[in-house]
Amino acid sequence: MPIITLTTDLGSTDFYVGSLKGAILSQLADVTIVDISHNVPLYNFSKAAFIVRNCYQDFPQGTIHIIGVNPEIDNETAHVAIYHNGHYFIGADNGMFSLIFDTAPDKIVELNINQDTDKITFPTRDVFSKAACHIARGGTLEVLGRIKNELNIRTLFQATTVNNLIKGMITYIDRYGNVHTNVSEDLFKNFGKGRKFTIYLRSSSYEITEISKTYNETYEGGIVAIFNTTGHIEIALNKGNAHSLLGLKEMNPFTIEFYD
Amino acid sequence: MPIITLTTDLGSTDFYVGSLKGAILSQLADVTIVDISHNVPLYNFSKAAFIVRNCYQDFPQGTIHIIGVNPEIDNETAHVAIYHNGHYFIGADNGMFSLIFDTAPDKIVELNINQDTDKITFPTRDVFSKAACHIARGGTLEVLGRIKNELNIRTLFQATTVNNLIKGMITYIDRYGNVHTNVSEDLFKNFGKGRKFTIYLRSSSYEITEISKTYNETYEGGIVAIFNTTGHIEIALNKGNAHSLLGLKEMNPFTIEFYD
Amino acid sequence: MPIITLTTDLGSTDFYVGSLKGAILSQLADVTIVDISHNVPLYNFSKAAFIVRNCYQDFPQGTIHIIGVNPEIDNETAHVAIYHNGHYFIGADNGMFSLIFDTAPDKIVELNINQDTDKITFPTRDVFSKAACHIARGGTLEVLGRIKNELNIRTLFQATTVNNLIKGMITYIDRYGNVHTNVSEDLFKNFGKGRKFTIYLRSSSYEITEISKTYNETYEGGIVAIFNTTGHIEIALNKGNAHSLLGLKEMNPFTIEFYD
Repeated sequence: MPIITLTTDLGSTDFYVGSLKGAILSQLADVTIVDISHNVPLYNFSKAAFIVRNCYQDFPQGTIHIIGVNPEIDNETAHVAIYHNGHYFIGADNGMFSLIFDTAPDKIVELNINQDTDKITFPTRDVFSKAACHIARGGTLEVLGRIKNELNIRTLFQATTVNNLIKGMITYIDRYGNVHTNVSEDLFKNFGKGRKFTIYLRSSSYEITEISKTYNETYEGGIVAIFNTTGHIEIALNKGNAHSLLGLKEMNPFTIEFYD
Repeated sequence: MPIITLTTDLGSTDFYVGSLKGAILSQLADVTIVDISHNVPLYNFSKAAFIVRNCYQDFPQGTIHIIGVNPEIDNETAHVAIYHNGHYFIGADNGMFSLIFDTAPDKIVELNINQDTDKITFPTRDVFSKAACHIARGGTLEVLGRIKNELNIRTLFQATTVNNLIKGMITYIDRYGNVHTNVSEDLFKNFGKGRKFTIYLRSSSYEITEISKTYNETYEGGIVAIFNTTGHIEIALNKGNAHSLLGLKEMNPFTIEFYD
Repeated sequence: MPIITLTTDLGSTDFYVGSLKGAILSQLADVTIVDISHNVPLYNFSKAAFIVRNCYQDFPQGTIHIIGVNPEIDNETAHVAIYHNGHYFIGADNGMFSLIFDTAPDKIVELNINQDTDKITFPTRDVFSKAACHIARGGTLEVLGRIKNELNIRTLFQATTVNNLIKGMITYIDRYGNVHTNVSEDLFKNFGKGRKFTIYLRSSSYEITEISKTYNETYEGGIVAIFNTTGHIEIALNKGNAHSLLGLKEMNPFTIEFYD
């Protein structure tokens, strides 16, 4: 049974998600619809990208991911369907997709689905669901529109290195108040080469000098840094809220110093 | 596979939705259960009606819609199952259904499912799920109870016209802060006959003189009026919150003036 | 089709629930995944136990219940899979399971699933989903680990009786503000033997002298006590919020006096 996932800012109160699911089920009787999140902060496509980026590979190959955040088209923004890493992605090319993939996608088409020109305020339902169901039925991307070679590019701040320092940034605060960063485990290990280090957290006098394997390696309320499931350094309090208790916010910079 | 949709005020924290879904799956192994919303404001059946009204037709014919808001019976309120427009609806006849349908339903039965008289605090699970599963198995409405000819009626304020004016009302504020009204596209076009017009928004000095096709026809934060997916005029800010920024609230009246 | 239910504190905004569902669907194509709740208060395994306890029996026999709250292991806490009352339960043995069952479970195994020791921050996805899919495919518990004879025990305050009094406690406030207690219908009936009684609610001058069958037996806003769907006394206001309007909070004691 084909799988279609939904990541939107439609919320879980209004009729919009019902409409979207109804439209999918009207086109395709046998389909597994999975809600990834409908609570993406409004219009925040970089959050949507973060969410999809960090879970899509847990789904089986061939899964179709609809992303309904800022779905409107304009002169610079087309509706696209993308095939990459064995998965399909459908949404508006507002820069979001460049934040999901680390490399250029295997295939991109600009959607050219004949739509009623008087019915264009809900493209997640009226365009994306059609593209998704077409793919779910085994249809090719080429039928949906013309091949496109490039996506619009947005970039996030990358962690940088200078002398003995990695300079990173906080990228995401999750429901637990855990603090996600842009310092990858690979960068940390390749640059650190096993040396001793201190993580200096801005707006906090806490310093961290080791990487833990689990949240509960310390006492309850104690601070830990771990390599998390996204492959990056995460700062957390064991059963506490690092975000509120340490005053750490998204976009805050922080530094890791290594010692020879 | 039959489809049962759920629209309730049960929320998404307690065990109630789990109980309801468990009860359905215990009666019917092969069923697609779709959450439309469990976040209907408490006891607010007119919101539930608005939500179901605006998405049920996106589902395939034969879909069964359970509405679990104010599900209790009393002397004036029966449990009913309704067939209308190719869809089934189950809930308490508290006036809600008259807000979902524009015309009298094709068939109504008053549910007469033998229920344990000591177990009547959760009719959405204990009565509605049984009726839904009966219908999903291909059973007829007549088996569920006796035919009823009329529903309890509630009415919402209808938009009215006087001289060159349409007098409308704000009916619903959605998650985006978009402002839904009771002025339908049909009324606007039939009454306006293509004339120039101004939409005067009470408690705001903004005036709108055109209908846009999409939210992003104006600059970000700019105000637009569109014919939305429900077939009515909607006031919105492009990527902004018309509700909070323009001070527009549910039940507020507003006026559209046409010029000869 | 096997059913796997999910009860977690993962929330509905981040990518975690998506990851978990993706992992299940990657292991098992034909499965019905049911969200019971992802909004368990953070780290609150006794709330998770309350939620699962009160809905699991509505699901069909053989259903597999994953509980992802405080999923980490430590010296005293193992990952376990349990068979009880025809249902399977998977989670960390942090005391939670002893709050779900009234009697010792039929079978317990301590999970010994070979896991990547560098990937242990998300056991709900990486361990529990594997155990669940193994069981869903018809596998035996014994393959998952060694038999364990006992669970860690947590106890909640039990209602007690003295002279003509039942001394109870408020255990849970639900979305409606309805007040759940630990006084069971059985205790009330066996101890009360049909005598007249008064329920004295602390921090409120309200006294209740009868048990109602439904919430709407009184006027809107009126107070009722009912035997609710969990088999306990519940204090509620008809279409009102007993929690906020009567000042009743979780852990508050209250008394029922019987008269000869």
